[in-house]
Amino acid sequence: MIRMGNSKNIPDIVIGRLPIYLRALNLLIAEQREYTSSHELGERLGISSAQIRKDLSHFGEFGKQGTGYNIAYLHEQIRQILHVDREWPMAVVGAGDLGRALVHYRGFVPRGFRVVCVFDNDPARIGEQIAGLTVQPMSELASQIAAHRIQVAMIAVPLEAAQEVATQLVEAGVEAILNYAPITISVPDGVQVQYIDPVAHLQHMTYYLTPKS
Amino acid sequence: MIRMGNSKNIPDIVIGRLPIYLRALNLLIAEQREYTSSHELGERLGISSAQIRKDLSHFGEFGKQGTGYNIAYLHEQIRQILHVDREWPMAVVGAGDLGRALVHYRGFVPRGFRVVCVFDNDPARIGEQIAGLTVQPMSELASQIAAHRIQVAMIAVPLEAAQEVATQLVEAGVEAILNYAPITISVPDGVQVQYIDPVAHLQHMTYYLTPKS
Repeated sequence: MIRMGNSKNIPDIVIGRLPIYLRALNLLIAEQREYTSSHELGERLGISSAQIRKDLSHFGEFGKQGTGYNIAYLHEQIRQILHVDREWPMAVVGAGDLGRALVHYRGFVPRGFRVVCVFDNDPARIGEQIAGLTVQPMSELASQIAAHRIQVAMIAVPLEAAQEVATQLVEAGVEAILNYAPITISVPDGVQVQYIDPVAHLQHMTYYLTPKS
Repeated sequence: MIRMGNSKNIPDIVIGRLPIYLRALNLLIAEQREYTSSHELGERLGISSAQIRKDLSHFGEFGKQGTGYNIAYLHEQIRQILHVDREWPMAVVGAGDLGRALVHYRGFVPRGFRVVCVFDNDPARIGEQIAGLTVQPMSELASQIAAHRIQVAMIAVPLEAAQEVATQLVEAGVEAILNYAPITISVPDGVQVQYIDPVAHLQHMTYYLTPKS
């Protein structure tokens, strides 16, 4: 495989599909499978096999005519491409219901991420223990992010506070933000932002439904 | 516009982008804009303008040469296509941290969804009030889903319980499930399932980062 790095101009929409492929490969590994094909992946994911082959071709030659993709190899290569062949320390801002759920979430560690600190501005929450972490005041945010070399953070605060928190995170050196608040946030160029948008998933599904009421 | 309904074989990946377009149009409306172009939408979303034009062409002719898309019109058409020109009642299963956060989430109502009931199997939680809703026992699930004509539900239980909950929801008549538990669930053909997968978003962003540690 030829490693392209970040400099090659691969469409962001293609990058966005790599985690989906990785998730499907995780499942195949759990099923103790050794080989798969763009066809099988496509059927499982509702994406055309041509699209999958085209997406992967941006990063090198992974499949062989006849045998298809070696699952373990493709899995490892995509982990490297996405830089998740390591563990990223993360900060959570907001220790309300959602922040607590994120600190407890068991899906992060197996896939390259670990929450290492959690912040809130509510004196009633500061000092509280969540899954072994102590909720820290916002005044500690910059120093903790530096100390843990944190580049990735999740925002779990009320929507009115999300922009201010994002600004503080960026000032502290955070380069990638996953925002759970239902509001668009502005960040400088070069800082990544993604949104957890349950409504987009719900609307995707209601396309296929016939309303009963 | 020619309304195609669900019968036309439009790729699911195209359907999945419509909520993203709708979200961008919401923002443009908030900015009091009247017209936009596939170019502008593409730049905001990191999707090629050709892709956007092709996606929308599955559903009819929305744009005009020269003036582009009328934002309010396109917004209304996509709402109709996705069946969110109405309000869908929803059930939440799981009244822990995440379930509580979902009941409180302010992003649903403005975009076509409303949580109308919440269930848990923990006697300590049953009867609790969350944002005006009373947590009900799982034994009430089927009757409440029927009474409210609920077709859409969200799973916010620990991963070990997610499959059993999904099965109960489908038996009760639910046709679309948004699963927050980090586990794949099996449902019969014809039932929609989507996943909230924060790790996919995180991995998308770490592609662009250079690890510091």
